[in-house]
Amino acid sequence: MLIKRLAIIGVGLIGGSLARALRRAQACRTVIGCGRDQKHLQKAVDLKVIDEYNVDVARAVKDADVVVLATPLTTTESLLKNMKGSLRNDVVITDVGSAKGSVVESARAVLGHHLPRFVPGHPIAGTEKSGVEASFAGLFEAHRVILTPLPETSVGALELITKMWEATGAEVVHLAVEQHDEILAATSHLPHMLAYALVDCLAGMQDRDEIFNFAAGGFADFTRIASSHPQMWHDICFSNRKQLLKVLDRFGDHLNTIRTAIENDDSDALLEIFTRARDARDKFTDQRGKRNESTE
Amino acid sequence: MLIKRLAIIGVGLIGGSLARALRRAQACRTVIGCGRDQKHLQKAVDLKVIDEYNVDVARAVKDADVVVLATPLTTTESLLKNMKGSLRNDVVITDVGSAKGSVVESARAVLGHHLPRFVPGHPIAGTEKSGVEASFAGLFEAHRVILTPLPETSVGALELITKMWEATGAEVVHLAVEQHDEILAATSHLPHMLAYALVDCLAGMQDRDEIFNFAAGGFADFTRIASSHPQMWHDICFSNRKQLLKVLDRFGDHLNTIRTAIENDDSDALLEIFTRARDARDKFTDQRGKRNESTE
Repeated sequence: MLIKRLAIIGVGLIGGSLARALRRAQACRTVIGCGRDQKHLQKAVDLKVIDEYNVDVARAVKDADVVVLATPLTTTESLLKNMKGSLRNDVVITDVGSAKGSVVESARAVLGHHLPRFVPGHPIAGTEKSGVEASFAGLFEAHRVILTPLPETSVGALELITKMWEATGAEVVHLAVEQHDEILAATSHLPHMLAYALVDCLAGMQDRDEIFNFAAGGFADFTRIASSHPQMWHDICFSNRKQLLKVLDRFGDHLNTIRTAIENDDSDALLEIFTRARDARDKFTDQRGKRNESTE
Repeated sequence: MLIKRLAIIGVGLIGGSLARALRRAQACRTVIGCGRDQKHLQKAVDLKVIDEYNVDVARAVKDADVVVLATPLTTTESLLKNMKGSLRNDVVITDVGSAKGSVVESARAVLGHHLPRFVPGHPIAGTEKSGVEASFAGLFEAHRVILTPLPETSVGALELITKMWEATGAEVVHLAVEQHDEILAATSHLPHMLAYALVDCLAGMQDRDEIFNFAAGGFADFTRIASSHPQMWHDICFSNRKQLLKVLDRFGDHLNTIRTAIENDDSDALLEIFTRARDARDKFTDQRGKRNESTE
């Protein structure tokens, strides 16, 4: 058995799906859940996602050999503080946060001698739904999980968390903390800002009912991520602020180039941008197609 | 038989799919295609999308009772000029352009006594693919087709084009020209600009290979429309310039509000925007779900 007693702090879509996937793979014996809402935790027990729960994080992590933080990013530091005194000396801790710089900062500030057994992680999977009801064992299959080990991270801890994610069907890759945050700002955090801004922009227009009424499939795809959890995305924005502001400004420049070309009747410039973007997007689709084939 | 001789100018995704759908519905007897590329037109004959073709538009429209323009928007005016002398006196003309103001301007400038039998139209359907090879009879099923009749438009012409689209399985609705252009700028043209700008922005970054490598499903959905036909979108931008610039500026203001909230640590403002957008998007999904049910 890979894990004897797994403590999952935050039994939502990601935490719940991880528990389900590890049970299915028979990779862990007992799962204890922790969260603020007792009713929600009882639901997770009823759904057989977890075996037991404790709303007190210090008690929840006691005796656990692996602790997974699957809570909003802004809660990371206080949770680490609250659990620190009750952690086993050989515990391995990981998290699933969408930004890694701020999590690593908190871990460095709080964890002391536990730091070498902290493995920062981020599964690149999710839906726009949230909550344990939306969790399912296959969420991570053929998806990537990025681990961003620190110079201090122990080989054993890294290996255990790698095996844990591989047991869910995910492909584990390693990146530097800064690289993770830059890449995610560009490919995930920025698109979410655009989707939120677009829907908010349209919802404020006079013809809003007609506008939403006539929106077609492309618009539905484009704005799907605007249905994501507001609090979670609020936390991600502030946790990855530096990289996000940088890429927001880059994007603003590119959109402005398009705007200027339209305003100035600059046919060549506009066609060049659209063609370049189309080619880049087609290349991305090809790569993605190949990757999906290779993981099947 | 609704249509005896249908001339389709531009046998691509939309023109080809319309021909296929009308044949399937046995709503037209003969389809003649017109375009600049003889090889492409021969392919359409081989695929049984059209019966015959003529690269000369004046000859192609001769004897046709219905003429459909399914060509890039920038070609509309010169095509109308070239066909005008050969049109039957009772011909009904329609188009499929994504912007209607510029098309109506051309029609008014050129068509003379044919104007009452010109019905501006726009099927809200398409994929990011193009060309007759991508066409299929079911493209318009359960999709909307917007017709924007003019004060001069004859009831008979409007009825014929309405029946033509209904024969493809589409739902026909009427809007004013200006309203069409405002709504489409918001729900279609703006999202395309955002997708193009996003992909172009990311493709120019130093870590571009890593960035595309780690992009997940949400990114794929979000940027799918950046694979659309550059020339077509170039034409749409200039044809609907006024409305597009207006909504681009609106969007810029909304994105900037988000940027400022992140920069100034304005937690309440950010959460408010995300929550408002999420609620609006969820409402849109509900509406869309209900509409799709009702058309099944």
